[in-house]
Amino acid sequence: MIIENWFLDDDVMGADCVTALKIKAKLHEEQSPFQKIAIYDTEKFGHLMTIDGVIMLTARDNFFYHEMLAHPALFIHDNPRDILIIGGGDCGTLREVLKHEQIEKVTQVEIDERVTALATRYFPELCVANGDVRARLLFEDGIAWVKNAPDASLDVIIIDSTDPVGPAEGLFNAPFYAECRRVLRSDGILVQQSESPFLHFDTFRATGEAMRAVGFTETQALLFPQCVYPSGLWSATLARSQSLTKYRVKDAEQKSFDTMYYSAEIHAASLVLPPFLRGNG
Amino acid sequence: MIIENWFLDDDVMGADCVTALKIKAKLHEEQSPFQKIAIYDTEKFGHLMTIDGVIMLTARDNFFYHEMLAHPALFIHDNPRDILIIGGGDCGTLREVLKHEQIEKVTQVEIDERVTALATRYFPELCVANGDVRARLLFEDGIAWVKNAPDASLDVIIIDSTDPVGPAEGLFNAPFYAECRRVLRSDGILVQQSESPFLHFDTFRATGEAMRAVGFTETQALLFPQCVYPSGLWSATLARSQSLTKYRVKDAEQKSFDTMYYSAEIHAASLVLPPFLRGNG
Repeated sequence: MIIENWFLDDDVMGADCVTALKIKAKLHEEQSPFQKIAIYDTEKFGHLMTIDGVIMLTARDNFFYHEMLAHPALFIHDNPRDILIIGGGDCGTLREVLKHEQIEKVTQVEIDERVTALATRYFPELCVANGDVRARLLFEDGIAWVKNAPDASLDVIIIDSTDPVGPAEGLFNAPFYAECRRVLRSDGILVQQSESPFLHFDTFRATGEAMRAVGFTETQALLFPQCVYPSGLWSATLARSQSLTKYRVKDAEQKSFDTMYYSAEIHAASLVLPPFLRGNG
Repeated sequence: MIIENWFLDDDVMGADCVTALKIKAKLHEEQSPFQKIAIYDTEKFGHLMTIDGVIMLTARDNFFYHEMLAHPALFIHDNPRDILIIGGGDCGTLREVLKHEQIEKVTQVEIDERVTALATRYFPELCVANGDVRARLLFEDGIAWVKNAPDASLDVIIIDSTDPVGPAEGLFNAPFYAECRRVLRSDGILVQQSESPFLHFDTFRATGEAMRAVGFTETQALLFPQCVYPSGLWSATLARSQSLTKYRVKDAEQKSFDTMYYSAEIHAASLVLPPFLRGNG
């Protein structure tokens, strides 16, 4: 909702704690076949995209989230080549993934073409890699796409989704994770954005539990700041049937591309769970 | 300001990004000689204290801040005995400090007695150590107290202040840090809450710079989540004339008291600065 130039997140998760951003103007609003998408200009965060009243990203602070969804998994995997992104319509995760030179193919399956159309217009800096010959942008249902994909054909799957209400609900459960496990190679890694471990602890815990329930032997939560999301403390949960704690430290230290938040040291730091979360994630 | 059952932080730092908490009722409000203090009951964060319209603390999430202001410095110091807290009127930092058995004396100098009076009533869990024989609670001006303190008489000074506007402004500058350095022993450590490194970067950077300018040879920023503060990413800056990176790891691992956020591993992780902050703090 908008009150006196402040955009308040609609708190669909019911945490009774949200971020408010001061806005200058509404630049665009539309009802797509899936959701209501709006673009605002903010006072200090550049462009803001909201979906169904929930803050999705701003130009200023999306780097935390996009870097942490992409780089930890890609530096844990020994040789990631074939990547799938489910959701991710703003293309920020895609851009980060394509910074890795050894990657041969990234398929992005976003259900709502309008999200990407608006990202191209209002967040062009996130879409600079959309024309990369290794990228394939599909606009269809990610759950159906995974169901039809061949066994053992992917190295990393990144689920870059909205909250587990509405269109994204089916992305947060065991049947979908089982399909992801089937299409991953034996050393493959699944990554899912898993909400605020402080505000949405039940979702956070359930994500790792559901992943283990379908046969992934290892899960690991990553913590990172995400300023405009409720609580500012966000998580991704990784699942695999091999170690998730080792990563290519030297490659991460000597990476050929710039990042704002991710580094080899931040990678290690993000794996540390504080006492109030121990035994979960 | 309060709009439709949401309390929005008053954004005195002008970041145009704040936290909003859903409240049930205002329980108390008063104008002290220094500031306007209010207490609310929230939907999911327990009691909330605000000062001049700014969120100070909630019952649910204050542990991040209080633990990180106290424990890192106390485990870096080899044998902390004499501690000074400037501000800290809610007594949460004091409680954490007194968990360390080797500490002999903690002097807390809070300018506004009403903050502590209201904490005793609305946050009794933070005030459980106020009667400890090692604790001395003074209600006077911290800057004047430090000016009158003898040379080399303290091991750790913790500046647990409000934002650097209003009453706390004089706590964020070189003349005050110079006095702190004088009253610290040669291995003493100064700790200052230093705002959001993302939203208030200039204050964050200036804090470390001012500490180095008065002769502390080492400074080190700590990062930690603080959900109800703007951006959810907060910092403390430590200053010393000896190493700040070594700490008593085994003592931290085997500490005799419980914490919700701090641990030996979190200590190390909190020292890691991401690329966008490197060279600062």
